[in-house]
Amino acid sequence: MSELRKDPVVGRWVIIAADRARRPSDFGPEPARPRLTSCVFCAGHEDRTPPEILAGRRPDSPPNGPGWSFRVVPNKFPALRIEGDLEPAGEGPFDRMNGIGAHEVVIETPEHLASLATMPADAVADVLLAFRERLLDLKKDARFEYVLVFKNHGEAAGASLEHPHSQLIATPIIPIMVSEELAGAAKYFEMKERCVWCDILREERRTRRRLVREADGFVALAPFAPRFPFETWILPARHRSAFEESGVEELRALAALLGDFLRRMNAVLNDPPFNFMLHSAPLQEPALDHFHWHLEIIPKLTKVAGFEWGSGFFINPVAPEDAATALREARP
Amino acid sequence: MSELRKDPVVGRWVIIAADRARRPSDFGPEPARPRLTSCVFCAGHEDRTPPEILAGRRPDSPPNGPGWSFRVVPNKFPALRIEGDLEPAGEGPFDRMNGIGAHEVVIETPEHLASLATMPADAVADVLLAFRERLLDLKKDARFEYVLVFKNHGEAAGASLEHPHSQLIATPIIPIMVSEELAGAAKYFEMKERCVWCDILREERRTRRRLVREADGFVALAPFAPRFPFETWILPARHRSAFEESGVEELRALAALLGDFLRRMNAVLNDPPFNFMLHSAPLQEPALDHFHWHLEIIPKLTKVAGFEWGSGFFINPVAPEDAATALREARP
Repeated sequence: MSELRKDPVVGRWVIIAADRARRPSDFGPEPARPRLTSCVFCAGHEDRTPPEILAGRRPDSPPNGPGWSFRVVPNKFPALRIEGDLEPAGEGPFDRMNGIGAHEVVIETPEHLASLATMPADAVADVLLAFRERLLDLKKDARFEYVLVFKNHGEAAGASLEHPHSQLIATPIIPIMVSEELAGAAKYFEMKERCVWCDILREERRTRRRLVREADGFVALAPFAPRFPFETWILPARHRSAFEESGVEELRALAALLGDFLRRMNAVLNDPPFNFMLHSAPLQEPALDHFHWHLEIIPKLTKVAGFEWGSGFFINPVAPEDAATALREARP
Repeated sequence: MSELRKDPVVGRWVIIAADRARRPSDFGPEPARPRLTSCVFCAGHEDRTPPEILAGRRPDSPPNGPGWSFRVVPNKFPALRIEGDLEPAGEGPFDRMNGIGAHEVVIETPEHLASLATMPADAVADVLLAFRERLLDLKKDARFEYVLVFKNHGEAAGASLEHPHSQLIATPIIPIMVSEELAGAAKYFEMKERCVWCDILREERRTRRRLVREADGFVALAPFAPRFPFETWILPARHRSAFEESGVEELRALAALLGDFLRRMNAVLNDPPFNFMLHSAPLQEPALDHFHWHLEIIPKLTKVAGFEWGSGFFINPVAPEDAATALREARP
């Protein structure tokens, strides 16, 4: 069982997942991974994943067999486990907790070689609706404070399987980056009585210098101070703090913009590895005036090194204005 | 000229170094780099770096020629530049500043294939003394609030040249991770009236579960809540907030322990890529009761992916107790 531990200086929690451990000798450079055309996530291999929690299925198809368009299954090698009560404990000056949480995989399509960039917008919308449904369900579990929805695409971005999938990890603690974002946004709101992301949206729609695309109530933009080249945020134009409060039509519009953005990114950067992370309000919060949910997308193009790890400063070799121009002008 | 920009939500600054920029098409996977046996940092190529700021030299050798044991030179492609006054400015809701700072390279040895792990302890001590001398010099420049000393070793850890070197970047702003560490440590001190690292040292020397090695006033340990497998901190046993206040004998002892640690790490992990980062108090602070300088060393063994970038939580597959045991028992 994994364990949560808190750094006594900065208060950052980590997950010590030693049951996933490898021996020291296993840490050499990874051998090049062969490109597969079929895997455990493919149609016909449903028995090779844990039983599904949710799926988009033909009306006549029984669970855990073929006939699906997406599936949500528990992660076979979870970072956190769903069973048990939270047991916080001290150890000298340190704090720990047993590794309770949820770790689920959203298999986005039965097709091994498909991708969110090439799938029909309806199928992408189904994936977003699956995120919403899982968030609404996990929210009922009082042990969980947060669910992070994220995607690792490509080996360099941390994906261990090539088949299109995203993940959800529910944690019993609000993650430190979410706390910091909430605290920064609350401070801004206190000063200005406006949501900081609403102000950012207003500025970016006015100058259009960092705007990538705007459609049907959603805006894709390059942030003013991006950590990474071609970092892009997608936000609802109207203020909303919780992703899971989105309506079906909103998520359809988001799916269309997300697909369009990924095609632009792939055209400009030649199908880069990337991550996306959904920043939404903590589960147990009511609607917040100062927090605005958004999706952050970061192509994996540069290496994070000592300066970044030691300072939290990032060196970004591409101005966001140039990234936005290239993405805006892309003709996928 | 590069530019500093501040994220309006979390207050994190980034360096937009677009003069180092590549075109979007330059972001494909890097071709495998040929292993060289000689480069611009090697003895005999002194004219291929900017003129040296500091060097360890034979008494009869003139600057910028052969006869040196280490050299400090300005980075040829600096992230920040030394010339000019700070010009903070606003842009709508955003804050920016011109990219003033210093970016220096410490060439640790004239030998292309040497390393801190294999160099004599005296030569490692000379490198640490060079860090001290540069910190003391940069401290006189009132524009600078912080100097981060760091090392990228190996391509996967962000090194662009193989020749043994480390770097210093002086910034006109206290980096966000340093501020957070200072704030966390100040809070702990307020509560307990003790330095948090002094408490950590006491606990680790008592239980010895995460102790790697202790010698001549320095302690190497695996932290309780490490972000990365085999993450190790080296701290002076006596409380000190500023690295640059260290005496020559202290730095000789640190050099011996650092070399020993690197040889253990290389034995256990087969010469991994790694970073180290010096955490020292901000330049313009007097001695601080709540801050304790330390060197953080992180082998690059795992990939940082969407969960980490979205939450600040880290998943670490190796318990620090196991890492410390392996390092303690290593016989390099």
